[in-house]
Amino acid sequence: MSTKAYGAHAADRPLEPLTITRREPGPHDVVIQIAYCGVCHSDLHQVRSEWGGTHYPCVPGHEIVGHVRAVGDEVTDFAVGETVGVGCMVDSCQACPSCEEGLEQYCTGSGFVGTYNAPTPDAPGHTLGGYSQAIVVRDKFVLKIRHPEEQLAAVAPLLCAGITTYSPLRHWKAGPGKKIGVVGIGGLGHMGIKIAHAMGAHVVAFTTSESKRDSARALGADEVVNSRTAEEMAAHAGSFDMILDTVAANHDLDAFAKLLTRDGTLVLVGVPEHPHPAPNVASLIFKRRAIAGSLIGGIAETQEMLDFCAEHGVVSDIEMIRIEQIDEAYDRMQRSDVKYRFVIDNATLAA
Amino acid sequence: MSTKAYGAHAADRPLEPLTITRREPGPHDVVIQIAYCGVCHSDLHQVRSEWGGTHYPCVPGHEIVGHVRAVGDEVTDFAVGETVGVGCMVDSCQACPSCEEGLEQYCTGSGFVGTYNAPTPDAPGHTLGGYSQAIVVRDKFVLKIRHPEEQLAAVAPLLCAGITTYSPLRHWKAGPGKKIGVVGIGGLGHMGIKIAHAMGAHVVAFTTSESKRDSARALGADEVVNSRTAEEMAAHAGSFDMILDTVAANHDLDAFAKLLTRDGTLVLVGVPEHPHPAPNVASLIFKRRAIAGSLIGGIAETQEMLDFCAEHGVVSDIEMIRIEQIDEAYDRMQRSDVKYRFVIDNATLAA
Repeated sequence: MSTKAYGAHAADRPLEPLTITRREPGPHDVVIQIAYCGVCHSDLHQVRSEWGGTHYPCVPGHEIVGHVRAVGDEVTDFAVGETVGVGCMVDSCQACPSCEEGLEQYCTGSGFVGTYNAPTPDAPGHTLGGYSQAIVVRDKFVLKIRHPEEQLAAVAPLLCAGITTYSPLRHWKAGPGKKIGVVGIGGLGHMGIKIAHAMGAHVVAFTTSESKRDSARALGADEVVNSRTAEEMAAHAGSFDMILDTVAANHDLDAFAKLLTRDGTLVLVGVPEHPHPAPNVASLIFKRRAIAGSLIGGIAETQEMLDFCAEHGVVSDIEMIRIEQIDEAYDRMQRSDVKYRFVIDNATLAA
Repeated sequence: MSTKAYGAHAADRPLEPLTITRREPGPHDVVIQIAYCGVCHSDLHQVRSEWGGTHYPCVPGHEIVGHVRAVGDEVTDFAVGETVGVGCMVDSCQACPSCEEGLEQYCTGSGFVGTYNAPTPDAPGHTLGGYSQAIVVRDKFVLKIRHPEEQLAAVAPLLCAGITTYSPLRHWKAGPGKKIGVVGIGGLGHMGIKIAHAMGAHVVAFTTSESKRDSARALGADEVVNSRTAEEMAAHAGSFDMILDTVAANHDLDAFAKLLTRDGTLVLVGVPEHPHPAPNVASLIFKRRAIAGSLIGGIAETQEMLDFCAEHGVVSDIEMIRIEQIDEAYDRMQRSDVKYRFVIDNATLAA
């Protein structure tokens, strides 16, 4: 099954039109006609091999929404025409303790199969992502989308940015009566603010840009703190139940750790290219604070997140692009010049 | 009320005999004749002003056991002659959320009042610890000791080393079915091994000294790992629910973080003089692991710990010293030349 796509042949080459082959659908497969695909920072890192280990051709994209074009004989949960999504994973071992608990992102069997650049028996030997017209995915990794159809493009980023923030907010119990910080107001952070607000928490957004104050409030932040202003930071000392830190660039973690109350947790969701400075241990000990990490979310939780967002009218703030604008979008994303997520109109692949 | 003690007049002077004054007991005070006092690393740091801020004369000691000599009119929980203990705290605000939850060590009101070197209205303006014949302590900060009287000296270190390890083991739910690591087999670590074992956990001790293998097993470790041996460490990758790290010297935290299972926690109880290297964030993210700190324990929990240890026959392994051997004991403690805690026979103060 041949489909048009966009990808790169090498780390130093721009993305270009490709024709790729999708596997023939098996009895448990869902064939999805992709309508939109969000553009995640990981796409850029992978395609340019900034993490190393990129297989070429590389077709990125793991914020996929579209419609079911066909289903395998054994698929009972999905029907042709249904609106669906695919996130960062397309398979896992389904047998290890993590998979059995619905935490496929922490699969300890084979490890989860990423939506792109992961080993697969299908040609060309590694998975190819959502910058394409269609994808074939095992039914267990396909998600139902219950948002109104006109919001579909803005739903796409929920599949990575949404679940990456929803999962730790749920795990560390954001909700009414809790004070939650969100560091960084970008693709991840803007979803963190919206979701924490929808959960009923008191949300404080941290930014280094004065210009983002109003927009952070518009996203649902109850307060906005300029993290470069010592007095503003000091006013919140020892008060947060959880701070969700979405900034991958290396930065001072202590500035945020000391804003946590006793038993509070600073949760990191971005891997820095260069290490953060070592955190202060006394700050952890004297309040029983923790610094933790969190990785996307499991499939059941991703469905829960999509349903929660549909119920609360939460979508991403997006800027739609045509596929041929992707390199320009990457450049702008690197300059944080996007509010807050680019989404590809996959219909433009047909041109 | 005058009492003999041992303390230092300056950071660079050895400890020497002193006569100090204890306050006249108020209605809620308990007067304790001190029988034994454990020797904690903190004593040495404080007396030599290695943390700065030491007030002189400095009389250290916060692992105090003895007998009630007198009680104030309003004291109902303690009777003359009763065997009691005092740990790291002698007071707190009793009104903040932490105090109300019985977590006085995290008091956010005035902060807890340390057993030595903390501000007090009593002469000489700062608290004086257990290297003395007697102490006057508010009843709420006095603990009951239910061990057999002949174990009393070996109970003393429970008041700091015991609770510092018991509290995080309880908080992070050590018990049957859990795999718990203890890093460092010294004053704190040997208590951590004994207590985790008594809680029913599978206990793995980490050491850098081959010579400690047998003694770690004797303390209750089910397995002993030489943390300098890569293959031994690798065999435990991703398997620990919690690792209690008692080593204050700066060291590689990642070596232990990567031994944690999903949702596992590395708990630090020592403040390093020089920072540990920055921990790897990806290691936290890809298993939702955490690095946390923990500080001693609350009064109710300290009583629970003492009762637990009495019930399970847990005491510290000690070497008894006379008070005039204290400087020599400090030197040996710095070389880790003690199995595993020095305890002062306070009767020798009378000589």
